[in-house]
Amino acid sequence: MAIITLTTDFGEKDHFAGAIKGAIYSELDEIKIVDISHSVSPFNISEAAYIIQNAYSSFPKGTIHLIGIDSELSPENKHIALKLDDHYFICANNGIMSMICNDIAPEKIVEINIHDRVETNFPVLDIFVKVACHIARGGTLDVIGKVINTIKPIKNLIPFINDEHNQIIGTVIYIDNYGNVVTNIKRKFFESIQKTRTYEISARNHKFEKIHNKYSDIIDFSLEESNRTVEGKGLVVFNSSGYLEIAVYKSNCTTVGGASTLMGLKTMDTVTVNFLNE
Amino acid sequence: MAIITLTTDFGEKDHFAGAIKGAIYSELDEIKIVDISHSVSPFNISEAAYIIQNAYSSFPKGTIHLIGIDSELSPENKHIALKLDDHYFICANNGIMSMICNDIAPEKIVEINIHDRVETNFPVLDIFVKVACHIARGGTLDVIGKVINTIKPIKNLIPFINDEHNQIIGTVIYIDNYGNVVTNIKRKFFESIQKTRTYEISARNHKFEKIHNKYSDIIDFSLEESNRTVEGKGLVVFNSSGYLEIAVYKSNCTTVGGASTLMGLKTMDTVTVNFLNE
Amino acid sequence: MAIITLTTDFGEKDHFAGAIKGAIYSELDEIKIVDISHSVSPFNISEAAYIIQNAYSSFPKGTIHLIGIDSELSPENKHIALKLDDHYFICANNGIMSMICNDIAPEKIVEINIHDRVETNFPVLDIFVKVACHIARGGTLDVIGKVINTIKPIKNLIPFINDEHNQIIGTVIYIDNYGNVVTNIKRKFFESIQKTRTYEISARNHKFEKIHNKYSDIIDFSLEESNRTVEGKGLVVFNSSGYLEIAVYKSNCTTVGGASTLMGLKTMDTVTVNFLNE
Repeated sequence: MAIITLTTDFGEKDHFAGAIKGAIYSELDEIKIVDISHSVSPFNISEAAYIIQNAYSSFPKGTIHLIGIDSELSPENKHIALKLDDHYFICANNGIMSMICNDIAPEKIVEINIHDRVETNFPVLDIFVKVACHIARGGTLDVIGKVINTIKPIKNLIPFINDEHNQIIGTVIYIDNYGNVVTNIKRKFFESIQKTRTYEISARNHKFEKIHNKYSDIIDFSLEESNRTVEGKGLVVFNSSGYLEIAVYKSNCTTVGGASTLMGLKTMDTVTVNFLNE
Repeated sequence: MAIITLTTDFGEKDHFAGAIKGAIYSELDEIKIVDISHSVSPFNISEAAYIIQNAYSSFPKGTIHLIGIDSELSPENKHIALKLDDHYFICANNGIMSMICNDIAPEKIVEINIHDRVETNFPVLDIFVKVACHIARGGTLDVIGKVINTIKPIKNLIPFINDEHNQIIGTVIYIDNYGNVVTNIKRKFFESIQKTRTYEISARNHKFEKIHNKYSDIIDFSLEESNRTVEGKGLVVFNSSGYLEIAVYKSNCTTVGGASTLMGLKTMDTVTVNFLNE
Repeated sequence: MAIITLTTDFGEKDHFAGAIKGAIYSELDEIKIVDISHSVSPFNISEAAYIIQNAYSSFPKGTIHLIGIDSELSPENKHIALKLDDHYFICANNGIMSMICNDIAPEKIVEINIHDRVETNFPVLDIFVKVACHIARGGTLDVIGKVINTIKPIKNLIPFINDEHNQIIGTVIYIDNYGNVVTNIKRKFFESIQKTRTYEISARNHKFEKIHNKYSDIIDFSLEESNRTVEGKGLVVFNSSGYLEIAVYKSNCTTVGGASTLMGLKTMDTVTVNFLNE
């Protein structure tokens, strides 16, 4: 049974996501609909790009991902559908797909052109659902759009690396549910620059000289529980998506705070890695 | 396969919505359960009425909509089930259905009377689920209740129109995820009064002389992006549900603010339309 | 068709829950996935224990409950799977199951030992999903772990009862979506101590001498609506899960406040019941 996933900034309260699901089931009885997220910050392209990149590949090949962020049609914001890594994506051409496309080349991209048949100010419902159901029924992309070759990029996708190759300047791209601060520095990229060198990671006035394998590695389990001092202490890990992340062990944003609030780090802030020459 | 939708004020955290789903699957293996919203503000009848009205019609005919808002049985709050527009609704008789019923006459309304067989202080789980599954199995409304002819109304459903037919006084009925301010003035109603006249829309000290077709219509795409001044500027549209809405282009309630916070508009506030005589 | 439920602290925004669902569907096409909650407070074991206890038993026998709270593997935090009441549970051995196990003895508990085959810092995705799908396919617990006999307890599970049996000292274990304050005092336990005695319930400086059957019992329906003074007034009920709860009728945490904010009660606070000797 085909799967359609939903990633939107509709929020948890309004009727929008419910209406989308109803419209899909009205077209296709035998379909699975899976919510990835409806809590993307309104119009936040980077957040949506990060979320869909890290969710899509867990799904079976052939899954159709409908992304409803900043999708109002305008002279500068067209609708696209693309096939990539044997998954389908339907979204506005606003940069959301550039994070995935930077890693994996799309097999085909089309600019959707069925709008002349539909007048709407809720394009996710009236256009994206139609396209998703068309694909779920086995339809091809060519029928619903004209092939294009490039998509709109987003900024700060790739960290900066200096000429001497001893400094990476990265950017905070996401704050997660635990307040952990995710940068755009991926493990592979980091290791290709690092080689065997030691390093210092800086974010504001915080410095780290170690990247842990997991959050609890900061704890010395040989000590009695009462003698361990980890509360509110920062650490750096490569997170489960492979991104360098500044975290706080067992943080809770609404009580003790998370890395973001405790260290004063927010999206678009700079995180620097200095490699120490051998 | 039949569909049961859920619209409640249970929130995203508690076990209530999960328990409901479990109870439905325990009765019916072959059923689709679709969340419309669990984030209706607690006991907010108007919000629930707006959400269910704008979601239900996207679903296939025959869908059963279970609405769990203010559903504790009391001498003044009975439980009803109704058939309308080939959809089924199960809820308390507290006004939630009056918005839909104002547009479309119900085919049948019953006051549920299976309570003598069930003692409960979680009626959505113990009563509504039973009724929903009964309907999903093809059961009739008559078996689970006695026919009634009218339901409880809610206030502020219909905007006021003056005798001269040159003024509509509407009410804010909903603030959406983007902070956009939805009034009870529907496009059809507006146009039937307007005819060809120009108009001025007032909300607090804000005035608008145009209703846009979509949010981005406020942008002059002929200008360079840096010369466009739309940030935080209000506009009026008929939203995708056909309601007159005061909005801010690409608003975000947690950062720059939305129409509601930027203009100081909240639920139950007045929005006035003055038509200028030709 | 088997059901896998999800109870996590992943929140509504991040990709984690979506990725889990994708991974399950990648292993099993014919499965139902049901969200119980993704909004458990980060690392809050007691909240998770309360939620899963009150949701699981509504599901059909054989349902598999995957609980992703504080699940990073460490020397002190192992992964377990257990069969209890004909349901399956997969979680960390951190106390989450102790609330359910206190009522019903597990049929079998295993400490999961498939980790040598999988290296991961996202164990819910890489370990729990594998175990859940194994069970859904009819696999036994013995294949994925070694049998253990006890699980880690949590504190404050059981209220204190004095030697004279005229005082129960309970603890607040949960604040629900309406701000209602749930204690660890269950109806059966209360009644077994009470016998026929009257009682006084104290929480901070608030005192109650009656436990209502439902929230609206506080209203005198014989009075005109305008003469009823219930706004913001506290009451005590046994909630739908059988726990003694201090509530406010039709509370709304974001407007008028709920019992928690209005009475200054929070998790871990003490609630005392004094029985008056006959």
